[in-house]
Amino acid sequence: MASTAGQVIRCKAAVAWEAGKPLVIEEVEVAPPQKLEVRIKILFTSLCHTDIYFWEAKGQNPVFPRIFGHEAGGDHVLPVFTGECKECAHCKSEESNMCDLLRINTDRGVMLNDGKSRFSINGKPILHFVGTSTFSEYTVIHVGCVAKINPLAPLDKVCVLSCGISTGLGSTLNVAKPKKGSTVAVFGLGAVGLAAAEGARIAGASRIIGIDLNPNRFESAKKFGVTEFVNPKDHQKPVQEVIAEMTNGGVDRSIECTGHVDAMISAFECVHDGWGVAVLVGVPHKDAVFKTHPMNLLNERTLKGSFFGNYKPRTDLPSVVEKYMNKELELEKFITHEVPFAEINKAFDLMLKGEGLRCIIRM
Amino acid sequence: MASTAGQVIRCKAAVAWEAGKPLVIEEVEVAPPQKLEVRIKILFTSLCHTDIYFWEAKGQNPVFPRIFGHEAGGDHVLPVFTGECKECAHCKSEESNMCDLLRINTDRGVMLNDGKSRFSINGKPILHFVGTSTFSEYTVIHVGCVAKINPLAPLDKVCVLSCGISTGLGSTLNVAKPKKGSTVAVFGLGAVGLAAAEGARIAGASRIIGIDLNPNRFESAKKFGVTEFVNPKDHQKPVQEVIAEMTNGGVDRSIECTGHVDAMISAFECVHDGWGVAVLVGVPHKDAVFKTHPMNLLNERTLKGSFFGNYKPRTDLPSVVEKYMNKELELEKFITHEVPFAEINKAFDLMLKGEGLRCIIRM
Ligand SMILES: [Zn+2]
Ligand SMILES: [Zn+2]
Ligand SMILES: [Zn+2]
Ligand SMILES: [Zn+2]
Repeated sequence: MASTAGQVIRCKAAVAWEAGKPLVIEEVEVAPPQKLEVRIKILFTSLCHTDIYFWEAKGQNPVFPRIFGHEAGGDHVLPVFTGECKECAHCKSEESNMCDLLRINTDRGVMLNDGKSRFSINGKPILHFVGTSTFSEYTVIHVGCVAKINPLAPLDKVCVLSCGISTGLGSTLNVAKPKKGSTVAVFGLGAVGLAAAEGARIAGASRIIGIDLNPNRFESAKKFGVTEFVNPKDHQKPVQEVIAEMTNGGVDRSIECTGHVDAMISAFECVHDGWGVAVLVGVPHKDAVFKTHPMNLLNERTLKGSFFGNYKPRTDLPSVVEKYMNKELELEKFITHEVPFAEINKAFDLMLKGEGLRCIIRM
Repeated sequence: MASTAGQVIRCKAAVAWEAGKPLVIEEVEVAPPQKLEVRIKILFTSLCHTDIYFWEAKGQNPVFPRIFGHEAGGDHVLPVFTGECKECAHCKSEESNMCDLLRINTDRGVMLNDGKSRFSINGKPILHFVGTSTFSEYTVIHVGCVAKINPLAPLDKVCVLSCGISTGLGSTLNVAKPKKGSTVAVFGLGAVGLAAAEGARIAGASRIIGIDLNPNRFESAKKFGVTEFVNPKDHQKPVQEVIAEMTNGGVDRSIECTGHVDAMISAFECVHDGWGVAVLVGVPHKDAVFKTHPMNLLNERTLKGSFFGNYKPRTDLPSVVEKYMNKELELEKFITHEVPFAEINKAFDLMLKGEGLRCIIRM
C-alpha cells in the first residue's frame, strides 16, 4: 500500500449543503495535514444534539456547505471538539479545560494554521465543524484535539466518549463530586443527563432523582441508576420545593442538563443549604438570565458550571476509556441504534424524533 | 466570695429602650442559667454593624427593649451569635456551620429553653439579641453558642473574633481558598472586607485588589495586604471589566463584603473563567435579585456564599484564636478605638460616622 503522506486523499463524506436539508454522501478531497495537524481515518462516529443544532442553524450564523460530526473514533484516537494545547494558562491550570487556543468555536469552519479548509469538492472548499468533521472517512484535526487511547478499546463503543457522555459523566465525577450515600438530582434525562446519573451511580449515590417533562424517559433511566422520578408537570408548586420535601431540605448535589434557564434555577434552589452543590451543564439560550435571591447563596449553597465535564481532552480522556475497559462505566446502554454511513440521515431522523440515545454510524 | 449559682445577679447593662435612641446603662437582674445554658461575665465587647442595623430597626421587626451586643470576650470564652449543637445534620456535616437548632435568629428575643428572657428590670423582661446580649456585665447564653478558647489569649483583642473578623477571614481561608501567588479581589473595605484581605495576605496572595466607593479607605487598607485599589466611581465601564483588564481576564478569587447586589454581580463576573471562585459574604436586601448570564457559570466559574466564614463556632474558633496567638493573624490593626462601658454610645457614634473599624468596650 502506497503512503498517502503529503497526498490528497479522495474519500466519502456526508456533506450538509444547506441548513436543515438531508446530508449528501459525496466524494471529497482531503488535503494533507499541515503543521500541528493530523489526518485520521474515522471508523465510527455518532450523532449529538450539537450537530443537529448547527445543522438546523435556527438563529445561528449559517456556515455551509459543511461536514458535521464530532463524536467519533479513529485509529486509535478520539477526536474532540475542544482541545488542549498544553501551553496556555487554562491548560497549565489544574482546574480548567477551556484551552485558550483550541476552545470550541462553532462559527469557525476552517483550520487555525492557515485559515482554510482541508476539504474540497472539485476545488470548492467544504467547511469544517468544531475542528473535527467526523462525518467523513478521513478528516484533518489539530493535534491538540486528538486524544490517544488504549489500542484495545472497541471504537464502536468508546467513540461516544468524544462529547456528550463524557460531558455528563465528568460534570458529576469531576465537578459535583457526590459523596458515597448522597442524594443527587439530575435535570434532563437525555444522553448527557443519563451520563450524569451514571456518574452518580459510579460515585455510590444512594438516591438519584431524575427530573424530566417527558415521562417516557423514566423507565429506561432506571438502567442508569435513577431511583426516583419527578415530572414538574405533575405538580402545582415549583419543582425545587417538591424535591426539598422529598429530601428533608434538599439534595446534596444537582446537575442541570437541559439548558433551560428555569431548570437551572430549580437545579440550584433544590440543593440543601449548608453543603449543596449545583452544576450547570446544559447550554443556555443566548438571552437567558439566571436569577436567584442571594440568600440562597449566602446559606452556603455552591453554584458551578462545567464544560465537557471538566475533562482535559488529551490528559483525561484515556482514563475515561479505562473506566469503560474495567467495566466501571457502562457505555452499551447509551448505544441504542447503529446505521451504516450511507444511511446517516436515519440517525438524524431518530434524534429529531427523540428516539433512543446514541446512534453509531459505521463508516 | 459567695457563689451566685442559682441566684439572680444584679449588674449593669446597656439597654436599648427604643429603636435608634441612645442606650441607657441600667441595673438589670440576670436570672440563673437553665438547662444547656451558661451565665458568663463579659469582660470586653465590641460593636458590629449588625447591632446598629437592628438597633435602628429600619424595616425590620422592632424588638425592644433589648440588650444588644454579640462580639465579646468572657472568662475564657467567646460568645457567638450562631451556635453548634453538635447533633443536627448541619453540625454533623463536615461542610456546614448552619446549625438547625442554634442558627442565627434576629427576631427572637428570648432563650430557647423556656421561650423567656433571662434579663429583667423590676420584673419587666428585657429582651435578648441573637442569643448573646453582650452589652451587659453578665449574660446568659446557650452552651452551643460559647467557644472555649486558650486561657492565655487577651480578651481585649480576641473578642473581635466573635463575628465580623472571623466572618471575613474564614470566607477567604475556608471558602475562597486562594492558592499562594494568586490574585484576589475584595469588595468593600470595612472590617469584614479587611479581614477577608487579611485572609488573602495569610494565604500568600500576590495581588489583593480592594474595591470601595470610599477612597478614604484605601490608605489604611494597605496594612491588611491590599496592593491595588479600584473605585467604581472612577470608571465608565462596569468594575468587573476594569478588573478583568487589570488581571488578564479576571481574578482567581473574589470576596463580596458589601451586601449590595450590584457588587455581588460584579464580584462574580470579575473572576477568571476556567477556575475563578467568587464568595458572597455581605447580607443582601430582602428584595435583592442576583442576576447573571448562565454562560458566566458554564465557563467554569464558581459562585458560593458563606456564613460566619464557614467556621463552626465551638469546633473552629479556638484555632482562629491560635492563629492570633502565633502571630499569623494580626488583630491589633482592626482595633481603632476603646471606650469604657459607661461611654458605649460613643462606639455607636463612631460607627455611624464610619470612623475606625472596631471600638472595644471595656466592661
Ligand atoms: Zn491551551
Ligand atoms: Zn456533542
Ligand atoms: Zn446543630
Ligand atoms: Zn456582627
